[in-house]
Amino acid sequence: MNEQAILHMPDSIYCFPLGEKEVLLRLRLDRRDAVEKVEVVYECKYRIQEKQECALLERRYEDRLFAYYETELALTDVRLAYVFRIWSEGKAFYFSEDGLSGTYDFSLAYFHFFQLPYINRADVHREVEWMEGAVFYEIFVDRFHRGQTPKDESYINLRWGEKPTPKSFAGGDLPGVIEMLDYIKALGANALYLTPVFCSISNHKYDISDYYRIDSQFGSGRDLKRLVQEAHKKGMRVVLDAVFNHCSMELPQFQDVRKRGRESPYYDWFVIHGEKPDPEALNYEVFSFCNYMPKFNTSHPQVQEYLIQIAVFWIKEYDIDGWRLDVSDEISHDFWRAFRKQVKAAKEDAVIIGENWHDASCFLRGDQYDGIMNYAFTKACLDYYAFETFGAREFAWKLNQLLMRNTAQANRMMMNLLDSHDTDRFYTSVGKNKDKVLSALAVMCLFPGAPCVYYGTEIPLEGGYDPDNRRCFDWEESRWDIPYREKVKQILGLRGLEEVRRGRIRIREQQGLLVLERWGEESLVRLSANQTKEAVPLEIKGEILAQNRFCKGMLQTDGYAVSRERMA
Amino acid sequence: MNEQAILHMPDSIYCFPLGEKEVLLRLRLDRRDAVEKVEVVYECKYRIQEKQECALLERRYEDRLFAYYETELALTDVRLAYVFRIWSEGKAFYFSEDGLSGTYDFSLAYFHFFQLPYINRADVHREVEWMEGAVFYEIFVDRFHRGQTPKDESYINLRWGEKPTPKSFAGGDLPGVIEMLDYIKALGANALYLTPVFCSISNHKYDISDYYRIDSQFGSGRDLKRLVQEAHKKGMRVVLDAVFNHCSMELPQFQDVRKRGRESPYYDWFVIHGEKPDPEALNYEVFSFCNYMPKFNTSHPQVQEYLIQIAVFWIKEYDIDGWRLDVSDEISHDFWRAFRKQVKAAKEDAVIIGENWHDASCFLRGDQYDGIMNYAFTKACLDYYAFETFGAREFAWKLNQLLMRNTAQANRMMMNLLDSHDTDRFYTSVGKNKDKVLSALAVMCLFPGAPCVYYGTEIPLEGGYDPDNRRCFDWEESRWDIPYREKVKQILGLRGLEEVRRGRIRIREQQGLLVLERWGEESLVRLSANQTKEAVPLEIKGEILAQNRFCKGMLQTDGYAVSRERMA
Repeated sequence: MNEQAILHMPDSIYCFPLGEKEVLLRLRLDRRDAVEKVEVVYECKYRIQEKQECALLERRYEDRLFAYYETELALTDVRLAYVFRIWSEGKAFYFSEDGLSGTYDFSLAYFHFFQLPYINRADVHREVEWMEGAVFYEIFVDRFHRGQTPKDESYINLRWGEKPTPKSFAGGDLPGVIEMLDYIKALGANALYLTPVFCSISNHKYDISDYYRIDSQFGSGRDLKRLVQEAHKKGMRVVLDAVFNHCSMELPQFQDVRKRGRESPYYDWFVIHGEKPDPEALNYEVFSFCNYMPKFNTSHPQVQEYLIQIAVFWIKEYDIDGWRLDVSDEISHDFWRAFRKQVKAAKEDAVIIGENWHDASCFLRGDQYDGIMNYAFTKACLDYYAFETFGAREFAWKLNQLLMRNTAQANRMMMNLLDSHDTDRFYTSVGKNKDKVLSALAVMCLFPGAPCVYYGTEIPLEGGYDPDNRRCFDWEESRWDIPYREKVKQILGLRGLEEVRRGRIRIREQQGLLVLERWGEESLVRLSANQTKEAVPLEIKGEILAQNRFCKGMLQTDGYAVSRERMA
Repeated sequence: MNEQAILHMPDSIYCFPLGEKEVLLRLRLDRRDAVEKVEVVYECKYRIQEKQECALLERRYEDRLFAYYETELALTDVRLAYVFRIWSEGKAFYFSEDGLSGTYDFSLAYFHFFQLPYINRADVHREVEWMEGAVFYEIFVDRFHRGQTPKDESYINLRWGEKPTPKSFAGGDLPGVIEMLDYIKALGANALYLTPVFCSISNHKYDISDYYRIDSQFGSGRDLKRLVQEAHKKGMRVVLDAVFNHCSMELPQFQDVRKRGRESPYYDWFVIHGEKPDPEALNYEVFSFCNYMPKFNTSHPQVQEYLIQIAVFWIKEYDIDGWRLDVSDEISHDFWRAFRKQVKAAKEDAVIIGENWHDASCFLRGDQYDGIMNYAFTKACLDYYAFETFGAREFAWKLNQLLMRNTAQANRMMMNLLDSHDTDRFYTSVGKNKDKVLSALAVMCLFPGAPCVYYGTEIPLEGGYDPDNRRCFDWEESRWDIPYREKVKQILGLRGLEEVRRGRIRIREQQGLLVLERWGEESLVRLSANQTKEAVPLEIKGEILAQNRFCKGMLQTDGYAVSRERMA
């Protein structure tokens, strides 16, 4: 065995409660180790010296370096002590807090067993139930659709369909979204994620000057209320964008500090190095290096209260279903803990999705967010489909590795995406190869977590980096690729399957194909995707639910097939 | 390289802020790897694509399996992105969130650099300054000393000095502690940790029936106030024991539930399976299996508020200096986060010490406790000195491993101990070998964290497991081992040295000796300890500060020498 490869950490993604009486345990070993079986020897910590139970761990995930073993334990006593037993070459090895050993003396175990000392209800990460069936549709509001409601149009400087610049205003708005709810629903999405809608001078509105008002370009509070109501009637959810890391320079509190400096009661709301904020000297903290986006001092109790009250207001008064958190990784854990408590108190099943591009496991233990925008998933898809730095084996390894970064609950509440307003469009990244987009969408829809489709993916819309990724939706149906769009619908429809929502998962390479399986008690759904340069013979058992470039038992390059079979 | 051995986790004990502008980074490698140097390539995350800084990591710690590299970075921009560069056999390897690679494309780094996205003040673990010089003396109040103050003696059933049973009452009290403050100070301790002092029918008082009153056996609130005042005058601190996991069955709130069942407003303060708590059926949650110690439901907001107000009360009204938290690992993170906020608001430098016998890194990130009772350290000392399962090499490895479990701040606020009211006395564990006790005390006093001496260690007092480890202090000086006691004082005095308080550390085996060095800018303190069966020649440079069984350049079995030399 490669002893240095063995990893287990108590009270971490390697040991966490699924509920008040259930715990999931993981153990990581070298993938190449010759291991016959892995067990966990466990008992209530006050009894383990006298007697022990034993359960088998399953080898469920593999990446390039490691194999990950898992088991779920149903407990009667939630004060768990445990030690792993690894069988290799006919011998048993014990793995405890003290490391690996050939024997284990349970009478001294209290010094070094692993433990989950007590499952406290307050520490259990509860899942937002609707997330397991959620299919998000991300809308960049200025560019999606302009409603029939008359409004002051003087701000509009982009003819619908022309290429946007960073300062373009095309006129998209909330009434426009409301008018297209049926369109979105028909596509198979049942949740909206809207980029910011509050008062702001920019088209993206990530620099907010009034958190309590809808920007008049986008409509009014009444429009948002109507949007949420209409969406709810159709069984759809609405998630808004919380820009709490920074604000606009125009925010009255910041303006007050600009005027009065240290005399202002809001001086400590920001992080200012000097008497007064000076945008030329940039002597205050900002988002990135944008002087017009001053960073909030979220360690300040008043700022915490101010921002959290905003989050609660839009939930209580407008009944929105959750928040996507902009630049959330630059805000303190302390803030998000307070935020979560009040948001969940206002609406228990409001979802909280962070924008963390990197490993966010520290934010995803149930005390802060529920999930994140899964850009690491995006990157893996780019490596496989666009950059072609990955074969199916490396892609499977990477997807497994991503699942092993977080708890089961967080994995199920990820917002998975191929692209967004912050990346090139995936369609453009893969050289406008629609087959690749479809294949990647199929992987995304079978992967744990909620898929999020960026508006226009279904036409498809192209676009490079910002601002090109924010083009106007093309409502001229004659320019749509209808057969492609039907396949998109078919793929999104797969989220309706029980095994896709909550089933177990296995991802591996087989004959050069990426094979992703999900299964429940009765049936198994299997996706096979081919990114090799050749057609690969593929035998399908059961019913085909979705496919592209698959015929006569051959899966073509860029093709995929999703089938469902009864469990043996 | 053993690629599977490489470990780094962002936002963890491998990457944490030391202050608002300083971060500590760790990287773990296989100890046996041939590595020429380890660097970190870093920059502000918004700039790393264009330019990078570079810093060297030092190989500071080694255990049986791994070598740990560390560096402290002083930052100008606190939005850190970084990638490690490992030089092995003349080649550079990059280690990022994406794993190990031979090259690294910084233009794509935003997808997989490691990051510390922003150092938020609220997330920095601030040290309690006085802890760096603290030497604790743990007192089991009923057995330490009986004061002159008259009191109702009818409860006393043990003649001072006789062997205690679980139900013995010997009469020790707070006035008795006050009378012995000078004694304790003269020994070299400057902080008291008292086992519980609140109303309770037991001698140990871990089952409390009134959290707002000192048990009359021990004295009164006035006595506690006087104790704290007198201690403070002498530059000493007082830490009390917070028993918040459970209470006594006699607590009025629990009594109310016993009477009124679900009708009681306190029903949800406990975890009851049924209408009413039934001590015979044990249908409610308790500490261990003790029906007289019902567990609090600390997820309940009222319970949180009730317990936290108690903690704040004794700080605000009696000016105590911190809390040791009984069975703290069985209480939720959520509770301790709320607890910390209010305790630190009441007294910024109040210390919070958990009773976690196991890896507690999840509680020690600055949002919950400051340190723990370091029973893993205790176990390592037992393995080396008592069970003799360790040689010096294994002991050094284990001590290094323990340091790598936690952040630098938590390490400096550990309460290190050889024994307590919950273990056999160390003196008894090592077969009453005083030389071994002295050697272990020397290791403890040079180890990061505050040493904690269990009352009577200095006489020494013997005792096996509870209740034998709670014998009465023997105040008959003629039975004391005075030369031994002088050596104890000499060892405790070492905590006064600047390099022992905050200096860097290196622990290793050399010629069979355990060698522990601490150094600052100007001088280095070195401990050598010999637990081999033979005398070992030892050349001392500089001044000898403390020693036992060292003469003519030979360190005898069970001997140690502590010396101080100027840095080269």
